[in-house]
Amino acid sequence: MASADDIRATVRKYVETVGAGTAADIVALYREDATVEDPVGTEPHVGHAAITEFYAAIEPLDRSTELFSIRVAGNSAAFSFRVVTRFGEQTFTLDPIDVMTFDEDGRISSMRAFWSQDDMVTG
Amino acid sequence: MASADDIRATVRKYVETVGAGTAADIVALYREDATVEDPVGTEPHVGHAAITEFYAAIEPLDRSTELFSIRVAGNSAAFSFRVVTRFGEQTFTLDPIDVMTFDEDGRISSMRAFWSQDDMVTG
Repeated sequence: MASADDIRATVRKYVETVGAGTAADIVALYREDATVEDPVGTEPHVGHAAITEFYAAIEPLDRSTELFSIRVAGNSAAFSFRVVTRFGEQTFTLDPIDVMTFDEDGRISSMRAFWSQDDMVTG
Repeated sequence: MASADDIRATVRKYVETVGAGTAADIVALYREDATVEDPVGTEPHVGHAAITEFYAAIEPLDRSTELFSIRVAGNSAAFSFRVVTRFGEQTFTLDPIDVMTFDEDGRISSMRAFWSQDDMVTG
C-alpha cells in the first residue's frame, strides 16, 4: 500500500498540474486502467486515452489552483481545492471536493469529483 | 432522487446531531440498511443496530461541530466539518471529509469518513 506521504505527494502534484500542467502531465499521475468520474453521477472516463481527452479540454485555459486540505484514509484520500479559470476580464471559481484511490506505487487508480454547476462562482 | 436542497438539509442536520444529539437522533437520519465506514479502510457498520452502537461511543462526550463546506453531485455529497471533543482542560479537534450517498427520501444510505489519527489536533 502507498504511504500517507506518497498519497499526499501525488495529490499535491495533481492539484499543481491541474493548475499549470499539460493533459499529459496530469494523466501521467494515473494508472493506465484508472477511472475518472467528474462530476460524480456522470459516465466515468476509463483508461489513459479517455482521461487524456478529458483533461485536454482544460489545457488551453488560463487557470490556477490552490489546495485547501487533504485527508488520507487507507489507500484513499479526499481533498478540497480551488480551480480558477480566466476568460479575459471574467473569472470562474470552483472549489470541488475530490476523492481518489491509489495503487501500491502511489498512482491514482480512481478519481471522483464532487461539485455541481451551483458551486461555480462567476466574477 | 433527493434534491440537492434535501441532501444539504440532511448533511446540516447530521453535523448538528453529531455535535449535540443522541445516537438515536443521528441514526434516524440513516436508512435501516445503511453502511458507515469510519474511517475509510475499516470494516463498515451495517444497519441501524450496528450504527447506533458506533455513535453511542460519542454520546456521553462534551462535543461540538461546525460545517465548513458541502459539495453535492447527483445522489451524493462530500463535506468537510470540524468535531471538537473536550475532556476537562484538553480538547481534541478533528476536521474529517465525509462522503455520503442518499436515497430518494434524502435519507443517508452510506457514509465514508476520510481522516486518520495524524489529523487529530490536541490542544
